[in-house]
Amino acid sequence: MIGGGEGSLIGPVHRMAARLDGICELVSGAFSSNPEISRLTGTREALNEARIYDRWQEMITTESTLPEEVRPHFITIATPNHLHYSPAKMALEAGFHVICDKPLCLSVSEALDLHETVERTGKLFCLTHNYTGYPMVKAARNMVLAGEIGKARKVIVQYLQGWLASPLERTGNRQAEWRSDPARAGIAGAMADIGTHAFNLAEYVTGEEVVSLSAKLNSAVPGRILDDDGTVSLTFGNNISGTLLASQAATGEENNLSIRIYGESGALIWRQMEPNTLTRLRPDAPAQVIRTGASFAGSGLPASMHTRLPAGHPEGFIEAFGNLYRNFALHIIAVNDGQKPDPVADYPGINEGVRGMKFLEAVVSSSRNGSVTIKL
Amino acid sequence: MIGGGEGSLIGPVHRMAARLDGICELVSGAFSSNPEISRLTGTREALNEARIYDRWQEMITTESTLPEEVRPHFITIATPNHLHYSPAKMALEAGFHVICDKPLCLSVSEALDLHETVERTGKLFCLTHNYTGYPMVKAARNMVLAGEIGKARKVIVQYLQGWLASPLERTGNRQAEWRSDPARAGIAGAMADIGTHAFNLAEYVTGEEVVSLSAKLNSAVPGRILDDDGTVSLTFGNNISGTLLASQAATGEENNLSIRIYGESGALIWRQMEPNTLTRLRPDAPAQVIRTGASFAGSGLPASMHTRLPAGHPEGFIEAFGNLYRNFALHIIAVNDGQKPDPVADYPGINEGVRGMKFLEAVVSSSRNGSVTIKL
Amino acid sequence: MIGGGEGSLIGPVHRMAARLDGICELVSGAFSSNPEISRLTGTREALNEARIYDRWQEMITTESTLPEEVRPHFITIATPNHLHYSPAKMALEAGFHVICDKPLCLSVSEALDLHETVERTGKLFCLTHNYTGYPMVKAARNMVLAGEIGKARKVIVQYLQGWLASPLERTGNRQAEWRSDPARAGIAGAMADIGTHAFNLAEYVTGEEVVSLSAKLNSAVPGRILDDDGTVSLTFGNNISGTLLASQAATGEENNLSIRIYGESGALIWRQMEPNTLTRLRPDAPAQVIRTGASFAGSGLPASMHTRLPAGHPEGFIEAFGNLYRNFALHIIAVNDGQKPDPVADYPGINEGVRGMKFLEAVVSSSRNGSVTIKL
Amino acid sequence: MIGGGEGSLIGPVHRMAARLDGICELVSGAFSSNPEISRLTGTREALNEARIYDRWQEMITTESTLPEEVRPHFITIATPNHLHYSPAKMALEAGFHVICDKPLCLSVSEALDLHETVERTGKLFCLTHNYTGYPMVKAARNMVLAGEIGKARKVIVQYLQGWLASPLERTGNRQAEWRSDPARAGIAGAMADIGTHAFNLAEYVTGEEVVSLSAKLNSAVPGRILDDDGTVSLTFGNNISGTLLASQAATGEENNLSIRIYGESGALIWRQMEPNTLTRLRPDAPAQVIRTGASFAGSGLPASMHTRLPAGHPEGFIEAFGNLYRNFALHIIAVNDGQKPDPVADYPGINEGVRGMKFLEAVVSSSRNGSVTIKL
Repeated sequence: MIGGGEGSLIGPVHRMAARLDGICELVSGAFSSNPEISRLTGTREALNEARIYDRWQEMITTESTLPEEVRPHFITIATPNHLHYSPAKMALEAGFHVICDKPLCLSVSEALDLHETVERTGKLFCLTHNYTGYPMVKAARNMVLAGEIGKARKVIVQYLQGWLASPLERTGNRQAEWRSDPARAGIAGAMADIGTHAFNLAEYVTGEEVVSLSAKLNSAVPGRILDDDGTVSLTFGNNISGTLLASQAATGEENNLSIRIYGESGALIWRQMEPNTLTRLRPDAPAQVIRTGASFAGSGLPASMHTRLPAGHPEGFIEAFGNLYRNFALHIIAVNDGQKPDPVADYPGINEGVRGMKFLEAVVSSSRNGSVTIKL
Repeated sequence: MIGGGEGSLIGPVHRMAARLDGICELVSGAFSSNPEISRLTGTREALNEARIYDRWQEMITTESTLPEEVRPHFITIATPNHLHYSPAKMALEAGFHVICDKPLCLSVSEALDLHETVERTGKLFCLTHNYTGYPMVKAARNMVLAGEIGKARKVIVQYLQGWLASPLERTGNRQAEWRSDPARAGIAGAMADIGTHAFNLAEYVTGEEVVSLSAKLNSAVPGRILDDDGTVSLTFGNNISGTLLASQAATGEENNLSIRIYGESGALIWRQMEPNTLTRLRPDAPAQVIRTGASFAGSGLPASMHTRLPAGHPEGFIEAFGNLYRNFALHIIAVNDGQKPDPVADYPGINEGVRGMKFLEAVVSSSRNGSVTIKL
Repeated sequence: MIGGGEGSLIGPVHRMAARLDGICELVSGAFSSNPEISRLTGTREALNEARIYDRWQEMITTESTLPEEVRPHFITIATPNHLHYSPAKMALEAGFHVICDKPLCLSVSEALDLHETVERTGKLFCLTHNYTGYPMVKAARNMVLAGEIGKARKVIVQYLQGWLASPLERTGNRQAEWRSDPARAGIAGAMADIGTHAFNLAEYVTGEEVVSLSAKLNSAVPGRILDDDGTVSLTFGNNISGTLLASQAATGEENNLSIRIYGESGALIWRQMEPNTLTRLRPDAPAQVIRTGASFAGSGLPASMHTRLPAGHPEGFIEAFGNLYRNFALHIIAVNDGQKPDPVADYPGINEGVRGMKFLEAVVSSSRNGSVTIKL
Repeated sequence: MIGGGEGSLIGPVHRMAARLDGICELVSGAFSSNPEISRLTGTREALNEARIYDRWQEMITTESTLPEEVRPHFITIATPNHLHYSPAKMALEAGFHVICDKPLCLSVSEALDLHETVERTGKLFCLTHNYTGYPMVKAARNMVLAGEIGKARKVIVQYLQGWLASPLERTGNRQAEWRSDPARAGIAGAMADIGTHAFNLAEYVTGEEVVSLSAKLNSAVPGRILDDDGTVSLTFGNNISGTLLASQAATGEENNLSIRIYGESGALIWRQMEPNTLTRLRPDAPAQVIRTGASFAGSGLPASMHTRLPAGHPEGFIEAFGNLYRNFALHIIAVNDGQKPDPVADYPGINEGVRGMKFLEAVVSSSRNGSVTIKL
């Protein structure tokens, strides 16, 4: 594991998600650019001292030379955005499969380069757009693709957070600091951090790609360089229109991601903060409340395969994140066994990373040019 | 009353709203362009036969000559959009106060002409943006203006309906027919019918005017001429940004209007379908659920003055609509008595009508030009 | 109208409910035992001065001698519990139909006497168990009786209010005073005031009568003589069991009435504070959200006949109360016209009043005897 | 681990909960009375073959002789009710700490015997009333004990499930079979399986013990011997009254456990199916929505110590169950280190087991005697 040391938000999530199903085991780490923090985290995780590293380059090099039975099968990258590209590339080249935090990197060109590296090395790559790991998101995609709402026409995806509604980056908060610093976050702020999640969710659930967009980015907090709020009008393939909102200045909001897909004969609504419910609207019949774990789910295998408990026993964020790890592990096992991985056990990959970077560059370009429509 | 005969959606609402508080009485009407329908409605309302008219022009002329004690104080106009301007103008010129359905008319130039007429005649004018009649909307505006969420930064207003998700206008549905016919509806469809409500709500609650916008309109239903769906990025005065969504092709949605206002130190959320609740988010404290009829409302007079029942006894659409009638009647009484009307008993007027038409022309223009930003 | 003067909670509700549909007109009243208050209310209602009375006895006597065209068709009784029996009896004997507040009176023997009076005089009688006027309650009863949830097995009805969580009766609050005074409220407090509503709702929706019960009453507020909280285990006919909770000491609750009916193949859930939604649970399929005003309601005529607006336009407490007035008026008109009233336009009557008093006497008896089971 | 093999509902939950925080490791098991199932489960868990046992007696005996560094610190018992007492007693006597499923055993006398065994051996004992592991339940207890709702007066606890609304026990469902068989489930059905959870939750949150009760049990499904539904009126110490509902015949309900605590100056409401929200009602101020992971929780250390993620990232059933394991492990570590365990890291123990059995015997006795009041 690279990054994710003490003080990290996402590091412990990776570790809990990986442990949950008893498939993955943490064996080594370079958890921080600060060696002391790296040691501290590694010790708390009860790692063999020799496998706690000060620098990620050293870790990749050393671990890649270990005998197969102790060498890790994959490397997790849980660092700020500017430190995704290099470790991901090096790990792939060194023969590791890779799980990497989103957004993929800092530009479309970096993204295409990683894409080429993945293809060339033949290694597996998972980008942690973890919201697609929720069972009811799987159900929604499955139902849309199966035509259960008729031809899809309109998608509304919103991701509202409030934690950056004050200039937290000027108070010493490390999470806020790197996210509002163009050198580490890239060309966008909220749109990169959470807008790409929303974008990925919309493309995943509709099964269509965005072909053009018009965007308006704002910096609600005075003095902030990058966007902390924005609205994007989307045009997807197959004549679907969409609206995407992302804000980290939505004071008081927690982690309010939702998606609504309207089709010719029905609609689906999902909200991350009540993730076990998928609401289906119908023009001529009562709305239906589809639930995680209910045997009727109607949503079929994609939902039930990503559910661990009977209905009414809430499953949450860690479980959804765990589904990415579980599916990635199943793919690795299949590949190692020379078998075809189960397509239902899907996870976001390198293509989704390229899409995200194209989205970000188009959004920033449109917003800088009076919201004019831009092709992706 | 002009329009609102049998088969009308909004006619009966006007009549129930007017009756609710025992202040207004219906005395005459030209309820339809079809004289038979007009007679039928008038008879059902137990009107004096002499005061049921075949044509609205005749009604205005005749009623204006009646002695003061039987002459109506005001005339309600509940016709399709293209039949607002002429009767409104004639009624004002004939000395009547006017309550008129929204949107005000078909163009900014008509709107400005009506504005001039109102000013010249000195008559009172109410435009039925009825959603501002809800107690919790009054509370929201009051709290925003009082600074209870700090400086406002972002508004998200959404109005989603599904009743036009199929080509209802081709099935003989009269409501759908005129709304999708440019000759009767004007330059916009959903944006005129419900988008103007959303726009009005956003300007009302923030107390700020939109200065520019970027819009993307869609026709989700194949073959429909006017828009049935759209997204607008708004820039208000005082550095507030906004997003407005309006759709009548959102399959399965009933009358899903909501507004979210995010400020520097808090946020307010209101949903029309659960109108007695106003949620207040705060960055450093639990969210608060502010309720119609609760003595603590904190929201003060503007809310309590528009509430009829104790908390937990749901008040709805008719009651909110009734608040417009009640306030308008109170203003007429005050004016007749030579007194200053109570400013808390407010209602939308001719200015709001002009704003709505400016909004519509800008939205259509932006959408036709690649979503480019347009000044209002 | 008897009672309901200034300061009354329910008086204005009666008047708004009666006015809503333009069928009923208030013509006379003895609004209070205090003549000044009676005059004040009558004047505000713009009544003819001669028809504002100081005493209800005088009103009944005088009005009964008026010519038919001005004589009221029915008399509304909106007084405290101990002043229901006498005016109701006198009004019936004087030839008036009667709408009376609940609970019917102070004892089973008074109730049976009123029942005999109604039968003997042939007059119509409506007891304002107004919650049965909600469209979704009508839908629930209709669905249960139609077997849509299979054989009913279990009913849970809860009515929670918090307004008497403090000793309000000792602060001069008139509403609280009479409700906590055995001389005016009768043998029970919360159980009489709201428990009878819950009981009526359970019998209405199931279509079955309670045959025995076990009760535990509490006085949560120290020093209060009557109950302000209680739990009742119910056994209905047809092998249905039930649980009834009623509390007016449930601090912070507004008017939280709900009912859940579980059957062999489904369940229905309705909550008064979100009255336009009826949820249907099913063991083998997603829950359904049935909505007031939606054309599909499935709930059929009983729901649609008591709905005034399209789906998504909230209807509330006044509208439901108005349904009782509208139905009662329709019955009077039918009777006057020698026609059979529409059975779908139902309203609670004298039988429901007798049931309520039997319930109260059984509850008090069981609670005083260690919660032992009592037959009704 | 004893029990919890393939086909078990709760076995996998124990294992995920134990793994989540990386503190516990599964080393041996007798997972089923069927040796084949035991082997299958052990193999899937990648256990050393020598430590997969056919019989639990063998496992306890053998494992207790292993050297300290490989010997398990505690044994989990996840068997049907009738197989709790013997393995628990044997494990304690053999020097193991024990985590045992609820209800504790089959009678008060067995319970008291286990209580004596725990005291005599000095071993730690955890009874998996897992719902007390939720952060917002911890917050509720903390707030009640801190007086934040004033003196508590009334508790309403409801546990509604629908999975036994059909005679599932006659279809070969093993979960349903043993739960409806007196020989394996004990004297009660639903009241034992979920009523004891509700009872434990009520005593935990109020901090008071029930002193007497009146109960009515039902068998909604024809032919079922044990109760599948029941209502209990409770009297707690310190003058708190309560109502407990438990049903497994509530058709369509998933796992609907909720608790409402009303005090002199406020109330708290928690629902297991939306576990990250605790609602606080107040008589004179807007209700508050207290949320897991929010820094302001006000609920203090007991909530934050049992939370793993920031607000808005849903935590669920496994996380709450994991809190029991984590706290139990922390106590073991403290004891092994000769330190005082952190009292905030609490978990339900042997006393709670005795309470549950007393509750069950009283409930059954009251119900068999016409719901007469019984002292606990």
